[in-house]
Amino acid sequence: MAKLRVHNYGCSLDGYAAGPNQSLETPLGEGGEALHEWVFETAAGRAMFGGEGRGGSEGAENDIFKRGFENVGSWILGRNMFTASRGDWPDDGWQGWWGDEPPYHCDTYVLTHYKRDPIEMKGGTTFFFVTDGIESALEQAFASAKGQDVRVGGGASTVQQYLNAGLIDEMHITVAPVMLGAGERLFENVGALEGYDLEYTPFEKAAHYRFVRSTR
Amino acid sequence: MAKLRVHNYGCSLDGYAAGPNQSLETPLGEGGEALHEWVFETAAGRAMFGGEGRGGSEGAENDIFKRGFENVGSWILGRNMFTASRGDWPDDGWQGWWGDEPPYHCDTYVLTHYKRDPIEMKGGTTFFFVTDGIESALEQAFASAKGQDVRVGGGASTVQQYLNAGLIDEMHITVAPVMLGAGERLFENVGALEGYDLEYTPFEKAAHYRFVRSTR
Repeated sequence: MAKLRVHNYGCSLDGYAAGPNQSLETPLGEGGEALHEWVFETAAGRAMFGGEGRGGSEGAENDIFKRGFENVGSWILGRNMFTASRGDWPDDGWQGWWGDEPPYHCDTYVLTHYKRDPIEMKGGTTFFFVTDGIESALEQAFASAKGQDVRVGGGASTVQQYLNAGLIDEMHITVAPVMLGAGERLFENVGALEGYDLEYTPFEKAAHYRFVRSTR
Repeated sequence: MAKLRVHNYGCSLDGYAAGPNQSLETPLGEGGEALHEWVFETAAGRAMFGGEGRGGSEGAENDIFKRGFENVGSWILGRNMFTASRGDWPDDGWQGWWGDEPPYHCDTYVLTHYKRDPIEMKGGTTFFFVTDGIESALEQAFASAKGQDVRVGGGASTVQQYLNAGLIDEMHITVAPVMLGAGERLFENVGALEGYDLEYTPFEKAAHYRFVRSTR
């Protein structure tokens, strides 16, 4: 069975998945980059976000980071992960935070209340804008994934909606030793996630937690 | 300079320092005991809470647990750490959760809005009930500590009040890999704690975080 998965999802010690005041200059909110520092220590993270040939660790955290991209056939993002604009789409030619060639390399469904035509990017990513809800986006994403899994990229509100609908099969989050003080809380109105087993792996740069749906 | 310190303060992954529905049967709220599991793995924790001679680790976590009791001359507790009752003190002879000989062994100031006479316990603990606010309690606690430090035991609201008043010098918290889903949040309305350096130590049973006031 294809799964819906969350990976490498960074939170602060005080529980925020992004800092306050997201803007085009601060896509992760103020201070939000510190949540992902562990990624930039890994070889795969540097290759993806920081250019090739810059070293980085090849250890367990690198494997964990890479795992988030294995057997993923499509992605779902909340609109706030795609842009800082809200409401009607401005006519600004915005194509996401990631430049010409986003790191998705497959169909990527963006949840929004405002219609927009798909955008085909380099490297296999096409952004589709879904206005009829999370179940519809998931259905389209599974169809596109052709038997592979679907990954939810975020943000917090998108993850919460899929958690509360009981649709997430696996969720890997990382807690960075930083305080943000405000922003988007991940664990807000999601209850105790009782249908999941919780694995904890303490790493040097961040504590990792993996929720896996209990066999029922 | 004597300090105001917080130690061994357990939180869940979703940020709760106690579970919901505290009662005389569930002093830490529902599920709250799981926050402190690491303590019961240490030799000192077992000696304190589980009886002597039951083994337990003598390693780094044991040292950290013990450090919370070193050079502590008095304690401050919120009322909810002392009892499950609220409002006027009931005539029930309640003397705290800890039996005849509480683990404080010194003067212990309980914050409350309701006057009550002091209670002298075995082993050196006397509970004083302070009705005129956190600064007054701290002043009395420092006087009683005679140059040693004062430890705030909790709960979350008490810690928050002292944090927001800028009075805490050091705070050690532990995040257990458990979800509570509801309860008392520690990091609520305390901001990013910018006046502190934050040290992170990942242990097997819990991730440890230590805030130490920055030298200014």
